[in-house]
Amino acid sequence: MNPVDIIVKKRDGGELTRQELDFFIHGLTAGAIPDYQAAAWLMAIYFRGMTDQETTDLTLAMAASGDQLDLHDVLPGAVIVDKHSSGGVGDKTTLAVGPIAAACGLPVGKMSGRGLSFSGGTIDKLESIAGWSAEISEEHFRRQLRAIGLVIAAQTANLAPADKLLYALRDVTGTVPSLPLIAASIMSKKLAAGADAIVLDVKCGRGAFMATLADAQALARQMVAIGVLAGRKVTALITQMEQPAGAGRGNALEVQEAIATLHGAGPADFQELVEAVAGEMLLIAGAADDLAAARAQVSAVIAEGRAFDKLRAFVASQGGDAALVDHPERLPSAPVQMRVPAPASGYVHAIDAREVGLVTVDLGGGRLKKGDPIDPAVGVLLAAKVGDQIAAGETLCTIHASSETAAAAVSARLQAAYTIDATPAASLPIVLDRIVSTANKT
Amino acid sequence: MNPVDIIVKKRDGGELTRQELDFFIHGLTAGAIPDYQAAAWLMAIYFRGMTDQETTDLTLAMAASGDQLDLHDVLPGAVIVDKHSSGGVGDKTTLAVGPIAAACGLPVGKMSGRGLSFSGGTIDKLESIAGWSAEISEEHFRRQLRAIGLVIAAQTANLAPADKLLYALRDVTGTVPSLPLIAASIMSKKLAAGADAIVLDVKCGRGAFMATLADAQALARQMVAIGVLAGRKVTALITQMEQPAGAGRGNALEVQEAIATLHGAGPADFQELVEAVAGEMLLIAGAADDLAAARAQVSAVIAEGRAFDKLRAFVASQGGDAALVDHPERLPSAPVQMRVPAPASGYVHAIDAREVGLVTVDLGGGRLKKGDPIDPAVGVLLAAKVGDQIAAGETLCTIHASSETAAAAVSARLQAAYTIDATPAASLPIVLDRIVSTANKT
Repeated sequence: MNPVDIIVKKRDGGELTRQELDFFIHGLTAGAIPDYQAAAWLMAIYFRGMTDQETTDLTLAMAASGDQLDLHDVLPGAVIVDKHSSGGVGDKTTLAVGPIAAACGLPVGKMSGRGLSFSGGTIDKLESIAGWSAEISEEHFRRQLRAIGLVIAAQTANLAPADKLLYALRDVTGTVPSLPLIAASIMSKKLAAGADAIVLDVKCGRGAFMATLADAQALARQMVAIGVLAGRKVTALITQMEQPAGAGRGNALEVQEAIATLHGAGPADFQELVEAVAGEMLLIAGAADDLAAARAQVSAVIAEGRAFDKLRAFVASQGGDAALVDHPERLPSAPVQMRVPAPASGYVHAIDAREVGLVTVDLGGGRLKKGDPIDPAVGVLLAAKVGDQIAAGETLCTIHASSETAAAAVSARLQAAYTIDATPAASLPIVLDRIVSTANKT
Repeated sequence: MNPVDIIVKKRDGGELTRQELDFFIHGLTAGAIPDYQAAAWLMAIYFRGMTDQETTDLTLAMAASGDQLDLHDVLPGAVIVDKHSSGGVGDKTTLAVGPIAAACGLPVGKMSGRGLSFSGGTIDKLESIAGWSAEISEEHFRRQLRAIGLVIAAQTANLAPADKLLYALRDVTGTVPSLPLIAASIMSKKLAAGADAIVLDVKCGRGAFMATLADAQALARQMVAIGVLAGRKVTALITQMEQPAGAGRGNALEVQEAIATLHGAGPADFQELVEAVAGEMLLIAGAADDLAAARAQVSAVIAEGRAFDKLRAFVASQGGDAALVDHPERLPSAPVQMRVPAPASGYVHAIDAREVGLVTVDLGGGRLKKGDPIDPAVGVLLAAKVGDQIAAGETLCTIHASSETAAAAVSARLQAAYTIDATPAASLPIVLDRIVSTANKT
């Protein structure tokens, strides 16, 4: 087997075998296949696509390129459920879904990342709670997962290193927007992290990587197909990202919003998103007979305060100040809070989520490059959302900034991020579609 | 401008501008654009193709990536004509065409290469003449061109280094068979070498890079289009390579054959090929009013011995023993000459030219890798060619080898290289098509 033959086979529209994909991914990871051959191969895949079987074999080869976790020894007999959101602005879903699932008895042991560019990261958000740390030992991880059923840690294991190599190469070779490559990238990390069942939250809209419903459906179907062929259960929800999720972007603001959601008092759209994702996790893990029963369990752990208690225990176990969970108003807050007034009367038709994310980066609440420091207090709190009627001068959103100057510098950008028109606009549905593998269809 | 944008533009089917191609080729040559970006870009070109204007701009950028020769100061007012053969087996055309053109008053100053794999090189062939050297100074080159009108030297100038980089990369990334890339590779070197007019001999058939007439025509049209857009005159002949050209492969054998051709006594197919190419060179340089007049001049310099005299003077001027030109039977000859008998009676339908080339390599007459030594005496002399009727046991060809063992080792391969069938076969035409730019159509 040699790399050129594999490139040529794909170039000519052939279907690569499991052996060929293993050879290529192993060679790439070991440094035996140079970047330029991988780059030509990626471009050939961009043009020719991959069958579901090929994409699955690629995913499995990538998952096998580094450590593969297995938490079954910690939790004998448990179904390990993971969730993945395909990225968006104001997406604090894990902060609320994790405690709910754990409170329902589903163990959640996640490795999460930090934010980059317009998109925030779960770990950055949690670090706005004083003392909380993502840097825990493997022993701590296992002990906490057994005792509390909820752990969120920085990625320490060498998970899917082939994905890191390929992602870096795709970024500089014009081969990012390839459905099989996107799907394999996401799913390889989930498989390597040891999930038996996965709920995918595929964001759709201008604030997401998949801008149209058709694109999001295609990605979701591709990932569900990989899951089925790899012997895992997968459900994909396609969810709204035509505007930022919930009310806020900014790390402490999002923790406050997640805590409100665990009290059943989150913004309507975010509350619905969280409960929908948590319900799917229960269903796919076999913890409920149908979606209605799953959703009832989710409502119950929220109403009884057990989801909130789980967040509290989880924060404390990772060194965080539990008093801040009890009193989220004590989380870091910005010295300046500046209203952004509506420039005209009418209805909100759209909010450019990406721009809200980029404004937060410029306020100091996100990073442009790895390692940049983050101000947990700053961000943007949305007052008006799509469908809302608003009069000129009323508040569109509030900027939380470190200074008047910093706030003033982004005010016009936030006004421009809102599309306001005289004609009425409908509010946006949260879940746009649900794609379930035949293996776990209910 | 950045490389990713250029890759993405081509990936999406856009037409790259002269500026973008200059930027990419300059960046590649300077080492600022890494191989992996070039590889992805090459694969995108493979899938999307290039317009004639793009291909021309790419060619000009590649030609400008190193030295660009200008021989007009040596030969004020002369039209610098070059010829290029797209490679084949037994192609000693330059050895005969060069002296003919020079004898007709067209200056020929060529930089040639050495052979690799099944294909022989002009310089290797000439080196079978004792004393002859391709390693001459630039001053020698210019003086000899002015005095004799014929020079063939090893490539010393840094001609089209971008082509070397791209060719090496294409070879290992599955992007060799792309028409615009093949055309740009050939034409960039011709433009850098300073030709005003170029006659292309595009080989077609199983022994050539272009196997079908349609492919050869497409390549020829592409190269003619580049020439027109680059302000050069170009004529392309598509010529037969379903069997080796002429009677032999092997360096001294081919020099003998070229000398015979300059006496008007070459094998019929090779004599016709040489006179056709030389005639086109005269026509394109404006040295004849039409092809008939050009061919008449060619016939005349052969009949009068002036073409032969030119070869003799050229060989002597580069240190070669002119007595060997007068007495080619004294050129190196192999100790063993073994007949290969026809295994059956019938007609010759095909001769696998590539296999004849590879057999010659195995006899020691070619090289597998750069720098391998070459035995000038060995090779294969074809007795029967396509269309010939032959009886079982009659001679198909003669192996010229260094030992009985070496000859015996390849005999069966040469028998197998011949396709013999009971049904009559026509002899093959030499020139299959002629493609002329509108700018110089006659």
